[in-house]
Amino acid sequence: MTMSYQRPFYDDHPTPYIEVDEIRLMRNLQQMQRRASEAGVKLRPHVKTHKSVEIALRQLALGAQGITVAKPSEAQVFLRGGVRDILLAFPIVRPDTLIPLLRDVENVQARLSLIVDSLLSVKAIAEARQHYPSCRVTVWIKVDVGLHRIGVSPHSDEALQLVRALQHYGLPFGGLLSHPGQAYAAGEPAAIAVIAEEEQTLMQQLRQRLQEAGSGECALSVGSTPTLLAAPPGKVDEVRPGNYALLDLTAVRLGLCTPDALALSVVTRVVATQPHAIIVDAGSKMLSSDRGPHGTQAKGFGIAVSHLTQQLHEVEKLSEEHGFVAHTGEVPPVGSLMRIFPNHSCAVMAMSDSFLLRQPQGEARVMPVDARGMVT
Amino acid sequence: MTMSYQRPFYDDHPTPYIEVDEIRLMRNLQQMQRRASEAGVKLRPHVKTHKSVEIALRQLALGAQGITVAKPSEAQVFLRGGVRDILLAFPIVRPDTLIPLLRDVENVQARLSLIVDSLLSVKAIAEARQHYPSCRVTVWIKVDVGLHRIGVSPHSDEALQLVRALQHYGLPFGGLLSHPGQAYAAGEPAAIAVIAEEEQTLMQQLRQRLQEAGSGECALSVGSTPTLLAAPPGKVDEVRPGNYALLDLTAVRLGLCTPDALALSVVTRVVATQPHAIIVDAGSKMLSSDRGPHGTQAKGFGIAVSHLTQQLHEVEKLSEEHGFVAHTGEVPPVGSLMRIFPNHSCAVMAMSDSFLLRQPQGEARVMPVDARGMVT
Repeated sequence: MTMSYQRPFYDDHPTPYIEVDEIRLMRNLQQMQRRASEAGVKLRPHVKTHKSVEIALRQLALGAQGITVAKPSEAQVFLRGGVRDILLAFPIVRPDTLIPLLRDVENVQARLSLIVDSLLSVKAIAEARQHYPSCRVTVWIKVDVGLHRIGVSPHSDEALQLVRALQHYGLPFGGLLSHPGQAYAAGEPAAIAVIAEEEQTLMQQLRQRLQEAGSGECALSVGSTPTLLAAPPGKVDEVRPGNYALLDLTAVRLGLCTPDALALSVVTRVVATQPHAIIVDAGSKMLSSDRGPHGTQAKGFGIAVSHLTQQLHEVEKLSEEHGFVAHTGEVPPVGSLMRIFPNHSCAVMAMSDSFLLRQPQGEARVMPVDARGMVT
Repeated sequence: MTMSYQRPFYDDHPTPYIEVDEIRLMRNLQQMQRRASEAGVKLRPHVKTHKSVEIALRQLALGAQGITVAKPSEAQVFLRGGVRDILLAFPIVRPDTLIPLLRDVENVQARLSLIVDSLLSVKAIAEARQHYPSCRVTVWIKVDVGLHRIGVSPHSDEALQLVRALQHYGLPFGGLLSHPGQAYAAGEPAAIAVIAEEEQTLMQQLRQRLQEAGSGECALSVGSTPTLLAAPPGKVDEVRPGNYALLDLTAVRLGLCTPDALALSVVTRVVATQPHAIIVDAGSKMLSSDRGPHGTQAKGFGIAVSHLTQQLHEVEKLSEEHGFVAHTGEVPPVGSLMRIFPNHSCAVMAMSDSFLLRQPQGEARVMPVDARGMVT
């Protein structure tokens, strides 16, 4: 167990910084692509995890169908980076938030998929699209399969009403889309696999009802990293995991991967030692204060491994620029390096302007977190 | 109570965004400056709170002596912005982390104060300074007055040893410096005032011991926003609060300010409503997941005020780009604005590249968070 958190240390960059291990990153990307391809399902990774154009281009080169983004400004960054098939998985409720993105999509002849869960969203998209009528837009209906965040109830007639509204406004209907984020709170793989199965059943039943009512073609786009690691993709058309590229302690705790699969860590330096704690130079402004996505609540803020002692320690507390790392007596010297595996890699990537890509022979490439700060 | 969280709403910018109310900001800056000036104490605000060159220049224009920063790269940003007297309140444990900053300090003939809490730090500074021997550097000894993060024990001989090491290396000794961060966990103003008094007593006693042993001049630099709002500055030379510029719900909960003093909020938009929650477009990538500094642990992630209903709501849960706002039946419409007062404004400013300065007549100025991401 201890061994699989081990990585070589290279003291070649000011601390603290994010290190992404290229071998593990590529292995994670390839494994998910293989999983999707073997099931005959398209992979459309959510890039909010890494916010890196280069990693997105690698996902596409390996066979991904397109990408998923969280916000319009994030989509614009990846369009500029050369991605030409983007799903914006966030509800648009006002035309003006969409218009600049439609302009960019039309300029480069890209494809944009959008989601709706209300008539207001349909109308906002229809109105925005009047400015760029030849823009290639497809609209998906977001279904709430248990996270209770956004989406129509799969048991109501809301989806049918939205299909009719899309037809009324001449907006192409793509299909049904879901995100079972509640899987993060399910605790272990068997329970997560049950959530994956429920998601697919709900989506297939709703599709059947829509098609019986005349919706026409209706694809299904599902998923999250936990459900896709806990069970192979079922009878759906597309899957949209994000976190799988980097992984983190949440995935380890849920039993979805081994520590050896973790591609992201934060390299930090010991700046003081106390009777009760090792103090490092990575605090909440580096690691975030995230305890895990969607209701997972880790006790601490990560696992720290000392370069010199190779011991594992818990990150117990954070102030803004200092981390408090627990110890039981053996304390690494001030000035030495530690590597922290965080709870939630998506949250950590969103803190930094750049990350270090650690290549197989140990060389480091500094790479931009292109879409950092793109929250609008 | 409700009224004091009220602010005018202006729907003139893509959501979500940080809004800093200029009237309240300036009032906060002036009040702390007055408090320091009336006590005959220098004010050296910690700019990690706002990371804004313009706000720092306003603090200096009002009478601040200089600024405090958390990391060398943060210091470099403020040097470039024109600040010429900077205290770096973070232990330097390797010469190479200091050398680029010393170069910049020497280039513009600025003054730099540094802290040490170990012989290693003294040696690292001495070695770095050999590269820029005419750089105006003063070294302060960091004293641990109860936060147990960094600093020498006020009851040991460590400070005396460090004074001698500074003399040995020809490094000018500035005095003793402390940060009573444990005040955030003290709960209410009277208990915080006790911590402030203990801090000053410990510092004065240690100074006396040092001077009796031949340290020579020894200034005292103390403080945190809680201790300085709970009790007037005592017999010290300098105070270094940071959060007072913007304030947040932590300060309200500690009884240190009214909601009306809060200068920072996040403006967000309702994107969906659920039976149990209002869903807004600000999640952890906008608000951070911070529940409060140094061990304060708020239950939620902030208080949200609806533009349309003026009701107050608790922000219960965050995913990365969505906030879950509790309600008891009355739900503002999708598309309407809400204003969130967060737990910890320093953590929120560190998430965004810019903030909106809302001026007295309602005009908005987009301003950079100049030192965002400066963690090394």
